[in-house]
Amino acid sequence: MSEAGPAQGARIVLAHGGGGELTRELIRRRIVPRLSNEALDRLTDAAVLDRPAGRVCLTTDSYVVQPLEFPGGDIGRLAVCGTVNDLAVMGAVPVALSLALVLEEGFPLASLDRVLDSVAAAAGEAGVPVVTGDTKVVEHGRGDGLIINTTGLGVLPEGGGLSDAPIEAGDAVLVTGRIAEHGLAVLSAREGLSFRTELRSDVAPLTGLVRAMLAAGAQVKFMRDPTRGGLAGVLADLSEDAALSIEVQEAAVPLSAAALHAAEMLGLDPLTVANEGKCLAVTPAADAERLLRACRAHPLGRRAAVIGRFTGAAPPLVELATRSGGRRIVQRPYGEELPRIC
Amino acid sequence: MSEAGPAQGARIVLAHGGGGELTRELIRRRIVPRLSNEALDRLTDAAVLDRPAGRVCLTTDSYVVQPLEFPGGDIGRLAVCGTVNDLAVMGAVPVALSLALVLEEGFPLASLDRVLDSVAAAAGEAGVPVVTGDTKVVEHGRGDGLIINTTGLGVLPEGGGLSDAPIEAGDAVLVTGRIAEHGLAVLSAREGLSFRTELRSDVAPLTGLVRAMLAAGAQVKFMRDPTRGGLAGVLADLSEDAALSIEVQEAAVPLSAAALHAAEMLGLDPLTVANEGKCLAVTPAADAERLLRACRAHPLGRRAAVIGRFTGAAPPLVELATRSGGRRIVQRPYGEELPRIC
Repeated sequence: MSEAGPAQGARIVLAHGGGGELTRELIRRRIVPRLSNEALDRLTDAAVLDRPAGRVCLTTDSYVVQPLEFPGGDIGRLAVCGTVNDLAVMGAVPVALSLALVLEEGFPLASLDRVLDSVAAAAGEAGVPVVTGDTKVVEHGRGDGLIINTTGLGVLPEGGGLSDAPIEAGDAVLVTGRIAEHGLAVLSAREGLSFRTELRSDVAPLTGLVRAMLAAGAQVKFMRDPTRGGLAGVLADLSEDAALSIEVQEAAVPLSAAALHAAEMLGLDPLTVANEGKCLAVTPAADAERLLRACRAHPLGRRAAVIGRFTGAAPPLVELATRSGGRRIVQRPYGEELPRIC
Repeated sequence: MSEAGPAQGARIVLAHGGGGELTRELIRRRIVPRLSNEALDRLTDAAVLDRPAGRVCLTTDSYVVQPLEFPGGDIGRLAVCGTVNDLAVMGAVPVALSLALVLEEGFPLASLDRVLDSVAAAAGEAGVPVVTGDTKVVEHGRGDGLIINTTGLGVLPEGGGLSDAPIEAGDAVLVTGRIAEHGLAVLSAREGLSFRTELRSDVAPLTGLVRAMLAAGAQVKFMRDPTRGGLAGVLADLSEDAALSIEVQEAAVPLSAAALHAAEMLGLDPLTVANEGKCLAVTPAADAERLLRACRAHPLGRRAAVIGRFTGAAPPLVELATRSGGRRIVQRPYGEELPRIC
């Protein structure tokens, strides 16, 4: 940053959102220098981009995580990675992000600067520019510090993407690493919660890992990043959509001792806790080993594991074979076990 | 709508944002049926769209207007039109919208349904599908009813768009109709404000009008919808960017008696008040009459007028020749004269 830092204690005022001089100054002095690129720098109402090289993907997410900063990340990193990952798991290469801030009057400018730095770093890591944005301010007490929306535009390369083949009994379910760390890290950081752990959020852009998986020579029939609703939510969707059962081996699901302990203390099922840097994939049994090797060769996939397989058992259910030798049905969580986690 | 309406008094609960069964139900029963289209109905993490036919435009806006419903529109109509218009004034044809809702716990489902109906109607009017979305819920007292982000993807047709020619002294400034009506209508509807007028917001999609303007055979060097900051903000930007002065004839600026009266009562300069269905355009003097005719032939442009022209006077300033024969400098508003207007 070339400009001086904000005056000690400087804060967002309503006028920062009024579309006048102060808005202009906020954008030109704090936002653009951090995120600079050719499309953004023009500061037109809409960014102009080259004609995409294939079909495009569009995805949007608003981020309301509390607290805004947590072990392993913050709302800025989350807002970039969450949206980039929604594109990546569709097999799309992210090409542009929009960034819309809703600030609460009184929000410290120093906190905004940290979040913007984090947006810039994560966007750099994911290799995707922020090309357009918006800034609004709501009165003190009518907002919650900072809410971010990012919308992502991606391009689907011709060939080399996800397979269109239907999921069949026997197909393997793979997850790229340890689960539940994002949700548990955010909870552990939340004010008023009495326990602390060494857990850190796994929030990371999955673009590189997914590209490696799709280039492995394995047929990949499905990918999804298990965020809200966790692994349980994605498995329930998959089973319902494929009209097949899924058998999951609890002992095979990557989970750190710290996460297991934290989940037990909180009375949470780790399968329902949000992840922000993991991918679940479905591949034919014959390709599972190949896909696993590709994952493990990537820094974000070192602890990848095959955790289960599709079966013809009717009616379609997700069944967990527990460590203790029992069996239980895994259900999509009903509602909000973990509010404001993303 | 095929489903029954919401139970009397039914409200948003935190679990609607948890990514589980209740989120799924909210999306499948309330949102998708109203906005249904091929891309949205798949309910994947990202919508897949055909390869665009040219360069693309991306624009984003969050909407925090209060009250959510106002004379002439509501936050749903505003969220569609505001984003569509940002694409239209770039010369782009809108092809897809995303819709992200941040709901406050306790928000009435009946209000949500009305807003969604309004989103659907405005999207239909603008001819653009909502292809993807997101739903988050924050605790009661931590949000403000409903905040909407829409992000728009547009395609720039080859040829027939805006001219690249630089703005020159002599060029005419045209506005497509009466100004200041959105901002004044929202203010008039705001709780606690004692005056009422017959003013209605001008919120409307400008896609058709802009297309007619670009097809008129006139060279159009610049278009912008003067929202936050009003006409004054756009004129100040234009003068600065072109390094030319602009002389505006106050008597030529379309303004209803009701708007003039309301602005006077509120002590506001109508030039600084937001519009949501107007376009300001710059064209060579020789093309002004042709462009004006094209505007007036469209229902949204019947009261279009040439309001001023660029001059070589230095330093570059926006000067208003007032009705009373005086002159004053028009400046970009400093901050928030009208908070939460869009």
